[in-house]
Amino acid sequence: MNVPEQALGAIEGVVGRRWIRRAPAELETYATDGLPTRHSRPCAVVLPGSRQELVSVVRILAHYGIPFVARGAGTGLSGGAVGDRDSVVIGLTRLNRILLIDPRNRRAVVEPGVVNVRLSEAARPYGLYYAPDPSSQTACTIGGNVAENAGGPHCLKYGVTSSHVLELEIILPDGSLVNLGSPGGEPWGPDLVGLFVGSEGMFGIATRIAVRLLPLPKAVRTLLADFPSLKTAGEAVSAIIASGIVPAALEMMDQNCVRVVEESIYAAGYPVDAAAVLIVELDGNSQEAVAAEAAEVERLLKDSGAGTVRMAADERERERLWQGRKKAFGALGRISPDLVVQDAVVPRTALPEVLEKISSIAAAYGLKVSNVFHAGDGNLHPNLNFDRREPDQLSRVERCSAEIMELCIKAGGSITGEHGVGTDKLRYMPLIFDGDTLAAMRAVRRVFDPQERANRGKVVPVHACREWSGVTA
Amino acid sequence: MNVPEQALGAIEGVVGRRWIRRAPAELETYATDGLPTRHSRPCAVVLPGSRQELVSVVRILAHYGIPFVARGAGTGLSGGAVGDRDSVVIGLTRLNRILLIDPRNRRAVVEPGVVNVRLSEAARPYGLYYAPDPSSQTACTIGGNVAENAGGPHCLKYGVTSSHVLELEIILPDGSLVNLGSPGGEPWGPDLVGLFVGSEGMFGIATRIAVRLLPLPKAVRTLLADFPSLKTAGEAVSAIIASGIVPAALEMMDQNCVRVVEESIYAAGYPVDAAAVLIVELDGNSQEAVAAEAAEVERLLKDSGAGTVRMAADERERERLWQGRKKAFGALGRISPDLVVQDAVVPRTALPEVLEKISSIAAAYGLKVSNVFHAGDGNLHPNLNFDRREPDQLSRVERCSAEIMELCIKAGGSITGEHGVGTDKLRYMPLIFDGDTLAAMRAVRRVFDPQERANRGKVVPVHACREWSGVTA
Repeated sequence: MNVPEQALGAIEGVVGRRWIRRAPAELETYATDGLPTRHSRPCAVVLPGSRQELVSVVRILAHYGIPFVARGAGTGLSGGAVGDRDSVVIGLTRLNRILLIDPRNRRAVVEPGVVNVRLSEAARPYGLYYAPDPSSQTACTIGGNVAENAGGPHCLKYGVTSSHVLELEIILPDGSLVNLGSPGGEPWGPDLVGLFVGSEGMFGIATRIAVRLLPLPKAVRTLLADFPSLKTAGEAVSAIIASGIVPAALEMMDQNCVRVVEESIYAAGYPVDAAAVLIVELDGNSQEAVAAEAAEVERLLKDSGAGTVRMAADERERERLWQGRKKAFGALGRISPDLVVQDAVVPRTALPEVLEKISSIAAAYGLKVSNVFHAGDGNLHPNLNFDRREPDQLSRVERCSAEIMELCIKAGGSITGEHGVGTDKLRYMPLIFDGDTLAAMRAVRRVFDPQERANRGKVVPVHACREWSGVTA
Repeated sequence: MNVPEQALGAIEGVVGRRWIRRAPAELETYATDGLPTRHSRPCAVVLPGSRQELVSVVRILAHYGIPFVARGAGTGLSGGAVGDRDSVVIGLTRLNRILLIDPRNRRAVVEPGVVNVRLSEAARPYGLYYAPDPSSQTACTIGGNVAENAGGPHCLKYGVTSSHVLELEIILPDGSLVNLGSPGGEPWGPDLVGLFVGSEGMFGIATRIAVRLLPLPKAVRTLLADFPSLKTAGEAVSAIIASGIVPAALEMMDQNCVRVVEESIYAAGYPVDAAAVLIVELDGNSQEAVAAEAAEVERLLKDSGAGTVRMAADERERERLWQGRKKAFGALGRISPDLVVQDAVVPRTALPEVLEKISSIAAAYGLKVSNVFHAGDGNLHPNLNFDRREPDQLSRVERCSAEIMELCIKAGGSITGEHGVGTDKLRYMPLIFDGDTLAAMRAVRRVFDPQERANRGKVVPVHACREWSGVTA
């Protein structure tokens, strides 16, 4: 289907010529997100400047039956924010106002285009912050975080995005505005907020997002430990979790990753000879309590075979330790033209074995894999560096990724921990969910979007063996 | 509509004569749940003895188009587990097997009729437990907890039921079995597990429930503090939460409640002259860390005006302190023929003011109100003692409850924190949700149950002003 010129004209009338992009070179910017293996130019990109403009744009698209894709900062890693040439991408970065910070009720209301870290900055004077902290938090938007149910290092203790969203105003694909949730975010009745968070753009666009703010912890201790093998590092993770202590973060990087970071401008002083390093952060509100937990974690790390355990002496050293971790993807991105940041989950107890097998799989495909990931919740990010201009590299990356996914599923895990399904993981969905469950997802999708115009063709494969409430696959 | 005799005969054939109840005296047992103001006898009660029998019963009901209500232990407090005479109640208490305890992956799989506390007992030898702990945990079932998204004192720190359910096998009202979720309970894609948990029996019946188990905390400190006024007790709650310390539990009881407990067999040594008492429990895995937090909480309690602060010296004293709290509803139930345990949420900061107003409202209706509740998350339980045999008492209780709900909504709160909507709160739903949101809930319901036979007439009022995916209200 072609997008009618009339519709684009009407949209231009709403947002102004400057905010609709149609030239091939302009569209190229929007042809990928953080996943380099999926490339697809939309028909047009629209950048509404206000909620009212957004509403009008969605209503015009509804009138003409045009598919659309909502997009935040485009940092997503599953190809979810990319549109085909019969669709319009709606960029939400101009809807970037923080509408309310209510310190008394620890609550904020934001537009979808607010950059994640800006909210924490705005809340800091009140002693509060917004907990979910994806590695891309200096760029990614809260709206995108809601769509993907984003995680981050500190979600081990504080929960992923769905634990922090209280209320949503959404615009449905048919152009109507609906409020979901209640001010306190009570978890009762059919949880439509929980359903919307993580729906990857299939159910509409969040126009206003009310989130929970948390008090800044008064005490923080950050430890760095190096290990002679992935196995001992994995055992340390198990020992800490088994102790019942819940670290604020528990992150692992393997030697490949550490070396790349240390050779980059983000060098954080990690030991380059170690097979793996762990970053463990503990936080709380009593200095004594956190110090006591840190002492116990230090003992557990050493008992598991850590070489050295370093505790950040001050905030500056702590920031440096974190910088290496948070910028690891940036550092990895510098050593080859293309980088796939994969995402999977395995039971923590399977970590050492799975990491070893991932390494063999990558070697068999002649690829270099580096691992940097949320070890505390078994959420792996194997990173594959490659150059898509080389013949067959792209195809090797794809086949290698598929083998890694199958490995993780066999180990009792899953195909994504926090990056979503998008287009990249669509093909693996039937490995995880049976036909009835996929059909249920599709039927729920059609409640919100009977024409399936919002992020069409993503997330839920059309694969069903039963009829759900009038939906035939 | 009458339930056809043929259908009941077929069901009797499946479960055996002993497990279908039709005599009025037998049905009377099932005519109420924990909410005494709703009384309604079903046509029959069926008690299947196995998953396979349950499946057959649901399929027979589907064949004849008969509405049904799933019921666990009947401890629910919103009238959700009660059926009309054109419906069949399916009692699930015989499906009470723990199918798996997997200590390595901290996971258990249970049938819906397993009593909450039994699971923690079974997990204890492995150093694990199931965290959600409703006051009724010695009677209520995990299946009922899933339906209601049940909370409990320790859900302040550990989250309500939805945070602990990983996978579900459900039987849909049409008789088909569907698996929802994945082994690790990853929170991505349309979260159908999250949608089912808390759906109050509208979407089908959970036949198998996979839940997360947590490691038993190694260190616990329990404090009891008494206060000269509700205001100072409320300020202590705010001070503790503002400190950023997250207690495992933070419970409040007012003087009326304390006196009733102390006059009962559950007497726990609470000070009867105080206007309110707080129970604060801290837990963790390092003795030093928990001791440090307890010391800080003790200081905050005293700074807020506590009279005396007592720390339980040993496990026996701790259990006694908790016994009074957990059996408070039992104690209150002894002083009058009937008791309504209300349920609402207010912002923590509004607690003192709201409690005072609730007291005036009850007085205006000539009713005695006692408060025992989860202060840490602002989840109130005003308890109204009454005698429904007295003329107009029932009507006064209903009007008083409605005024309390309106008060809580005005204070920025909501109509239920953990007991669900059921039939009791149906009338308040339009005060919280607009017509579009209610219509969305109903449309989602119809995905799972197009005929709306499962718990018909409950939770979502038929009140809609737009059409959703072919559903017209």
